[in-house]
Amino acid sequence: MKLATLNDGTRDGKLVVVSTDLTRCCAAGYIAPTLQYALDNWARVAPELEVLARDVEHEAVPCERFHERQAHSPLPRAYQWADGSAYINHVELVRKARNAEVPDSFYHDPLMYQGGSDNFLPPRADIPLGDPAWGCDMEGEVAVVTDDVPMGVSVEDAAGHIKLIMLVNDVSLRGLIPGELAKGFGFFQSKPASAFSPVAVTPDELGEAWADSLIHLPLMVDYNGEPFGRAQAGKDATFNMAQLVAHAAKTRSLGAGTIIGSGTVSNKGPEGDPGKPVADGGLGYSCIAEIRMIETIRDGEAKTRFMRAGDTVKIEMRDAANHSIFGAIEQEVVEA
Amino acid sequence: MKLATLNDGTRDGKLVVVSTDLTRCCAAGYIAPTLQYALDNWARVAPELEVLARDVEHEAVPCERFHERQAHSPLPRAYQWADGSAYINHVELVRKARNAEVPDSFYHDPLMYQGGSDNFLPPRADIPLGDPAWGCDMEGEVAVVTDDVPMGVSVEDAAGHIKLIMLVNDVSLRGLIPGELAKGFGFFQSKPASAFSPVAVTPDELGEAWADSLIHLPLMVDYNGEPFGRAQAGKDATFNMAQLVAHAAKTRSLGAGTIIGSGTVSNKGPEGDPGKPVADGGLGYSCIAEIRMIETIRDGEAKTRFMRAGDTVKIEMRDAANHSIFGAIEQEVVEA
Repeated sequence: MKLATLNDGTRDGKLVVVSTDLTRCCAAGYIAPTLQYALDNWARVAPELEVLARDVEHEAVPCERFHERQAHSPLPRAYQWADGSAYINHVELVRKARNAEVPDSFYHDPLMYQGGSDNFLPPRADIPLGDPAWGCDMEGEVAVVTDDVPMGVSVEDAAGHIKLIMLVNDVSLRGLIPGELAKGFGFFQSKPASAFSPVAVTPDELGEAWADSLIHLPLMVDYNGEPFGRAQAGKDATFNMAQLVAHAAKTRSLGAGTIIGSGTVSNKGPEGDPGKPVADGGLGYSCIAEIRMIETIRDGEAKTRFMRAGDTVKIEMRDAANHSIFGAIEQEVVEA
Repeated sequence: MKLATLNDGTRDGKLVVVSTDLTRCCAAGYIAPTLQYALDNWARVAPELEVLARDVEHEAVPCERFHERQAHSPLPRAYQWADGSAYINHVELVRKARNAEVPDSFYHDPLMYQGGSDNFLPPRADIPLGDPAWGCDMEGEVAVVTDDVPMGVSVEDAAGHIKLIMLVNDVSLRGLIPGELAKGFGFFQSKPASAFSPVAVTPDELGEAWADSLIHLPLMVDYNGEPFGRAQAGKDATFNMAQLVAHAAKTRSLGAGTIIGSGTVSNKGPEGDPGKPVADGGLGYSCIAEIRMIETIRDGEAKTRFMRAGDTVKIEMRDAANHSIFGAIEQEVVEA
C-alpha cells in the first residue's frame, strides 16, 4: 500500500491511503489519524490500512484527488532520522573532494550519523538558505521507516522491521561540513531539514524491485530541469537497508517511526571508475559534491557551483512501466 | 511550575502538574494530555497549566501522591535531542584521556552533537548494557526544552524560548567512542538512550539560581551510593544554554519540544587545575571519564573502571533549602 500525509495545518498532518497510480486518496483517520500513530500500532493498524488500500484501488470507497503538492513529508516530524552511507562510491568521491581519507573500516562497518528530525520540509517546500557561502547541496537517497526494533537485532530480523520506503533529499551545507567535522562531533549545522517523497510505500509495492533490502531501480535526480543523476539504487551498495537498521540498533532499541537513510545513491563507472555525468552518457550523480569532484579530477577545478536561490532539484523513482512510485520531491532554494 | 509525565503504559505517558515540594501531583489531561502537546501549544496552554499549578500548591484541587519512580522522562520520546559541551573543562579532560587535541574553535564555537531521541529511559530505569567492554559511563548534565525557535535566532531571543529545565544522564559508551569518532560522523552507537529527571521545571521555579541562562547550583552526582560530583553548574561554562539554543538554530528552525543539553557539568580546580575528587575535598566529577583522567595524571594510570552490571548512579540538584528541585535520576546498569 501507499501512504501519504496531507498538510492540514496541524504539525503531524492527516494520514491518507493513496492509490497505486497516485491519482486518488482516502482519509484513513478512522483507522489512524497520523502516520506516527499507525507506526506506533503497526501490527494492529496495518491490516486495516491494507483493506482500505484495496478499496481505494477498486474505487469501492469515496476518494478525493491526490495532489502531491498538498502532501507533507510522510512523517512531518519524527522521533529519529539516522542516515547511513551505503554507497561508498559517494563517500570516496566526497572525501577526495575534502582531501580526507576513506578509513578501511568503512567497507565493513557502516557509517551513520544522527540527523535532525523535528521539522522536516514538505516535498514541494522551498529550501531556506541563510548564506550562499554555506554551499547548499542536495543528496538523493532512499530511506526506510521501521516499527519498534529491539536492541541487538540481527540483520535478518532487521529486514522484517522495514515497514515503509521513501525517497529523501538530505540537504547538506558543504561549506560548513569541514569545520564541523573537524570539531569531531559530526554534522549539526551542516545538515538542515531534509524533505521526503510525497508517498511512502510498503515493500510489497515494489514487487521484484525490492530485493535483498535494496531498491533495484534508478534514482532520478534532475537539477534545474536537466537530468543530473540516474544511479541504480540496487548497485554498488556496500550495505543494504537491513544492515543499516541493525547497525543503528546495536547498542539501543529503535522506536517505531525511526527513519534510516541509505546515504547518497552513487554508482561507479563501468570500469570501477567514478563514472560520467548524464550529459556525457554516464549515470550521473545524486549530489553536486560528486560532480565537482569529477570536474576536479578531469579539469583541475570544480566548475559546477553549489545551489543558490532559484536553483531547483527534483528527485523521483519510476517503476518498469515508467510510473512514479513515491511521487516527486521538487524543491527550490530561496534566501532565508 | 513543575511538570512530570507519569508512565501509564502509553508511549507518551500522562502529563501531571507537580507541587513544588514534589509530594503531590494532579493530572493535566483536560489542558494537555502529554508534555509534547503542551509544548506544541505552549502560548495557549502554559497559562492554564500555571493556574492548575497554583491550585496544586494550595491544595485547591484533588491531588494524588507524586512518586518519582512512576515518572517517565518528562518527554518519553522527543523530536530532537541535541547535546552541547558548555563546560570545556570536561572536553579538555576527556580529550586528554583520548590523546586528542582541543581545537581553538571550541572556545568560541559551541560543540554540539545530535542525539537519539526516539526512546528515552525513565529516570529510574535500568541502563541495559550489551558488553562491559563498551565502557559504560554516566554524564550528569543540565538540559532545556524549547518551544518553536526560528532559524537564525539571536542569543537574546533564544533565552526566551527556554520553557523548561531538566537534568539528564547522557549515557555514553566510552569504549565505542574512539572508533566511531575516527569515522568522522560523530557519535551514534556510543550514545545509547539518555534518561531525564522525573520533573521538568519552568525557569521561574529556580528563582535567582537561574541567571544568564545557567543554573547557579551544584549538580549532585552519586556513584554507587557515594558522593562523586558536586560541580557548580553556574561556573566554568564557556557557553550558556541560550547560546547553545542559538547555535542549534543557526541553519534551521527548531521544533517545539527540542531538548538542548549542556554537556557534562565540570569545574576547574581553584588554581585553574583539573580539580580533585570529592573524597579529597574537591568538587569531583559528573562522569567516570574525568576521574580516570585525573588518576592518569596523578598515578600514571586510570584505576576507576567504567560501569558494569550492578553499578548505580544518582543525579540530583537541590535548592538553597536542600530540597530536590527536579527529583532524582537513579539508575543501575544491567546486562542487556
